[in-house]
Amino acid sequence: MNRETVYTCYVKDKGRRLIGVVSLRDLVTRDPELPISELMVEDVVFVNVFDDREEVSKVFKRYEFFAIPVVDNEKRLVGIITFDDIMKAIEEETTEDIERMAGVMGTDDKGYFETSILRQVRNRLPWLIILMASAMLTGLVIAYYEDQLALIPSLIIYLPLLMGTGGNAGSQSSTLIIRGLALGEVAPKLALQVLFKELRIALLAALALSLLNMAKILFLDGQPFEIALTVCTAQIIVVIIAKCLGGMLPLLAKKVGIDPALMAGPLIASLVDTFTCFVYLSLSMVILSMF
Amino acid sequence: MNRETVYTCYVKDKGRRLIGVVSLRDLVTRDPELPISELMVEDVVFVNVFDDREEVSKVFKRYEFFAIPVVDNEKRLVGIITFDDIMKAIEEETTEDIERMAGVMGTDDKGYFETSILRQVRNRLPWLIILMASAMLTGLVIAYYEDQLALIPSLIIYLPLLMGTGGNAGSQSSTLIIRGLALGEVAPKLALQVLFKELRIALLAALALSLLNMAKILFLDGQPFEIALTVCTAQIIVVIIAKCLGGMLPLLAKKVGIDPALMAGPLIASLVDTFTCFVYLSLSMVILSMF
Repeated sequence: MNRETVYTCYVKDKGRRLIGVVSLRDLVTRDPELPISELMVEDVVFVNVFDDREEVSKVFKRYEFFAIPVVDNEKRLVGIITFDDIMKAIEEETTEDIERMAGVMGTDDKGYFETSILRQVRNRLPWLIILMASAMLTGLVIAYYEDQLALIPSLIIYLPLLMGTGGNAGSQSSTLIIRGLALGEVAPKLALQVLFKELRIALLAALALSLLNMAKILFLDGQPFEIALTVCTAQIIVVIIAKCLGGMLPLLAKKVGIDPALMAGPLIASLVDTFTCFVYLSLSMVILSMF
Repeated sequence: MNRETVYTCYVKDKGRRLIGVVSLRDLVTRDPELPISELMVEDVVFVNVFDDREEVSKVFKRYEFFAIPVVDNEKRLVGIITFDDIMKAIEEETTEDIERMAGVMGTDDKGYFETSILRQVRNRLPWLIILMASAMLTGLVIAYYEDQLALIPSLIIYLPLLMGTGGNAGSQSSTLIIRGLALGEVAPKLALQVLFKELRIALLAALALSLLNMAKILFLDGQPFEIALTVCTAQIIVVIIAKCLGGMLPLLAKKVGIDPALMAGPLIASLVDTFTCFVYLSLSMVILSMF
């Protein structure tokens, strides 16, 4: 009899099936003459041996028990999970999520120093390669507009700013949605509400950013108005697309059964980079031809 | 008497000071004639009312109790924290960390849909502005090398690739260190070990990436060797600096009392963007002048 299992006593029938639960409190505070069958609560919350730990964590959070019985498919009691196991499991789940959100794919629950150099490289390299491939696509878009850039070289000065703002705006949204999914506050069926909310947030944020940017380009950089207009219009479009993409991709991933944590900052930023170049440079051809 | 507090009984002296703890198990299983003073354990783990929740979470994780007494500065018992409070606190701490790592500054523990549009904008805009300012610096570096870019326009095609790889490589490192700090696996005093480890990981990852990249630039893009050499050398330098910076900045922040979660992907990527442009374009002047 150890500390973990003494305060909640599970009642089994002859076939080892779980039929009830009785607390030590009831055993000591209620009439000692009463049979267990009178004391026990028959409506027991339990989990199945095949449930994954994320599911079990949710049961713990919902009921706030400090122990939950585990049964097999015939409802035979096979073990008990206690809150400290679950705290560890939640911590490991969260670490895995956070790492995946940064493009680190480790699956072993070892600490930073316990993971070997080679293992670390193996955990980090796949996403770096995928994201490098995605960045090559961005390079292709730039190559396509090379003549335009040669014509107006100052356009390139604002490219890092646009790519940066877009990537960051998208990361913010995807992170909030990924965390919301993990906590059960957001679900794929709420996609339209998320889209509408991100759209309005993006519009306000984009206007604020591009006003600041407009002032800086005109008065500090001393660029002509058409350059400022191109950059700021591109910025508004990019922030809006980035935030909507950041909000939608994790929901889509969840819907089709991919881990939403993969649709985080690095991937969003890479995708946003590509269409930022496209939006900015194609827009520049339209706007600059009007002046 | 509620469920949460019945299984662990705290013993106070006349001045309400906490002097011991006795478990319900001992009360019911040991000799009923024994006085409480014989049954109780005097070495009680407790927390202070002024401890922050991160500190309290660590005590819970260390001891795996399901309740911990809270005392004031005179060691008078003022309350009890149970594991379910702590599970919620850890969850909120983690959410705050994850959001900060994406440049979202919310401090209220409300869910995604409960946070108003204006509040969301206020949570997200400050970092977007800071990072935009940082991206403007990158623009200055590019403006400085404008002549070089005009001379060899194909250099610009590889800029997003270099900035992307650097940012992602740095994010990976900073994320692992930030999480390691939160879990107590990494500490500022281990900075040299972290630096040495990141250096070796960076070297291996950078070599792998730049070999792939070299092949692609030479054989797919058909660029001359000096362009491939410039891009790949820059990539190795950038990945190494990014990973070391990503590993060190969270430790430095912790050391000086800033939340390490702020030294995450977005900030690292912005810093890396600036020196990527500098390293790449200055390197191109050196290497291309040799051919």
